Amino acid sequence: MKRADLLVIDDEFPVLYTIKAILEKHYTSIATFTDPKEGLAFLAEKGCRVLITDLRMPKINGVEVQRRALAADPDIQVIMLTAHGSEKVAVEALKMGAFHYITKPFDPEELLLLVRKALDQYAFRKRIQYDTEMARSLQINLLPATTMATDRFRISARYIPGGNVGGDYYDYQLLSGGALGVIIADAAGHGVSSAMMMAMLKMAFTTAAPACGNPSTLLEIINRSFIPILKGRTFFTAFYGIFQPEPLRLTFASAGHPFPLFLRTAEQRFLESDITGPAIGLFHDAAYVDNEISIQTGDRILLYTDGLTDLDEDGAAFAEFRNQMQALAYSNQPDLLDVLSQPVVQRHPSHADDITMVLIEC
Amino acid sequence: MKRADLLVIDDEFPVLYTIKAILEKHYTSIATFTDPKEGLAFLAEKGCRVLITDLRMPKINGVEVQRRALAADPDIQVIMLTAHGSEKVAVEALKMGAFHYITKPFDPEELLLLVRKALDQYAFRKRIQYDTEMARSLQINLLPATTMATDRFRISARYIPGGNVGGDYYDYQLLSGGALGVIIADAAGHGVSSAMMMAMLKMAFTTAAPACGNPSTLLEIINRSFIPILKGRTFFTAFYGIFQPEPLRLTFASAGHPFPLFLRTAEQRFLESDITGPAIGLFHDAAYVDNEISIQTGDRILLYTDGLTDLDEDGAAFAEFRNQMQALAYSNQPDLLDVLSQPVVQRHPSHADDITMVLIEC
Repeated sequence: MKRADLLVIDDEFPVLYTIKAILEKHYTSIATFTDPKEGLAFLAEKGCRVLITDLRMPKINGVEVQRRALAADPDIQVIMLTAHGSEKVAVEALKMGAFHYITKPFDPEELLLLVRKALDQYAFRKRIQYDTEMARSLQINLLPATTMATDRFRISARYIPGGNVGGDYYDYQLLSGGALGVIIADAAGHGVSSAMMMAMLKMAFTTAAPACGNPSTLLEIINRSFIPILKGRTFFTAFYGIFQPEPLRLTFASAGHPFPLFLRTAEQRFLESDITGPAIGLFHDAAYVDNEISIQTGDRILLYTDGLTDLDEDGAAFAEFRNQMQALAYSNQPDLLDVLSQPVVQRHPSHADDITMVLIEC
Repeated sequence: MKRADLLVIDDEFPVLYTIKAILEKHYTSIATFTDPKEGLAFLAEKGCRVLITDLRMPKINGVEVQRRALAADPDIQVIMLTAHGSEKVAVEALKMGAFHYITKPFDPEELLLLVRKALDQYAFRKRIQYDTEMARSLQINLLPATTMATDRFRISARYIPGGNVGGDYYDYQLLSGGALGVIIADAAGHGVSSAMMMAMLKMAFTTAAPACGNPSTLLEIINRSFIPILKGRTFFTAFYGIFQPEPLRLTFASAGHPFPLFLRTAEQRFLESDITGPAIGLFHDAAYVDNEISIQTGDRILLYTDGLTDLDEDGAAFAEFRNQMQALAYSNQPDLLDVLSQPVVQRHPSHADDITMVLIEC
């Protein structure tokens, strides 16, 4: 037998038999056990969608059966069979994730209804989960390799997913003349539409960046192509920098994105510019301005998304990150971003937002 | 008072008072009514997230209260209060969409638990709904105007969404020399990842098509840019045709997409080609082949997705559609696609798949 849709565990054979008889009229994939141990062994090996288990059983009680079932597959929907008087424990079961409980003796129709609802719920959760996983996997595939080196620049990146399907994106391209184009972006909100925006941006960057000598031009092209799609309902921020080797310099433009950190040995500052343009998708004629700074061998520029700055309300986590970065100014570790981010992120394990960091070493 | 999170309706004041006292320890937004009419008036004007209603009330019973609440907002989670012996009716309430029922007298903790679960469920459904709507709206914004005319060609399109966030896409672009490039695509599956793929395709088409003289070249560029992103986990089909005015001809290439219908007055056939390439995203080195046919003034070419062919299992709906199309060969209606599709779609109101049709009249 393959996985059962329905798994029934009740140590009283007459009850088990009755439930089986009710269910068999409507479902074909049913496994039944009077011994909870055997039922759990079946569950561990084959799995089920809906588990119907008695609450009071001599060997292993229903709450424990439920605990093990949910540990195996948190989407399993549990219907707890209780006798009058044991509602208190049934409430415990609900608290621990049961779908519903039903008090013996019960109406066959009630049982069938609950089973149908539980199967629907299982299917719904699996669908959402599959969808989210596919989206996340596509989204991660949008990102380039985490390290890359040109003759002149070394680039490394970290993407730390938050709890949801996120809206962070970064990418880089070798441009003509040994230049390196680096983009970072962050979509408003989370979820499907953010994922879609970043997927579109990937394509726009891949196809349009090679022909754009100026960062501002790329942002303007991108803004123009997104305006009719986003229609002002949502937006994203973006920063695009072109690292030029001869003479060594960085030109950049920002569409409402947090300003990168610039580190030259002991000096650390934000690459602020007087004029930052609006986020992408807001204004039809948005214009962006190119900024240029000269850079030196050894300079480091860190691009990031606000998942890093918003780890806590007072910005202490980001301040600590910056201090650490300065302390490690001369470090040559290839995994510098891990060293910097891990302690900070570990202290905020349930960060909802994606965190993205891209470090360019000149 | 704004919308209440919790709305409680019970004609017995002591019960209502008790429930209120239990809830007030944990929630601030609670509205209570002994008169179901007043409760419903509040609901209609302000709304709620969770409705707790007694089943037996003299003026309007709980099932009717629930019916009206769900009509106002199908996401409202209803907890039905029942006395022992009325489980049968409570089961009816569940069938009609209640979240749960609770039998009086109940354990305060059980009520609080159910309320918390119901609020979570409400929030979850609203979030999924918002996400889906945003994605659908973005997706519809990817599509161009439904009609367009060049000196030589008239194009009209219909997109009929199915039940889910779909994966259909079509687009057209004026190319150099008065040529018209028309693309149609259909992602495997539905949901987020399909929506993301089509959003990326939009960007790729917009940016790459103007430079591609041959349909096969565009499909190859697109395939190459999608391979590292899709990694063989999913795919989409696409058909790209370039309508050339001088001399009048159509060149096209297909990546596993259903063959368009070609209609020249009485003659109707599929634009089949011996060599069709694989769907996009499957093979790294996929090559596509250009086909060319000469066309005449008055010819019609219909591109479509398999939402149209798969309306029923035996293909009868599509056969009827084709017959109708042939019968209307000389028709000059601007809304020809509506005339053709409406009767077919009306007979299959719950079609799950998107249906897309693009008609080019030469």
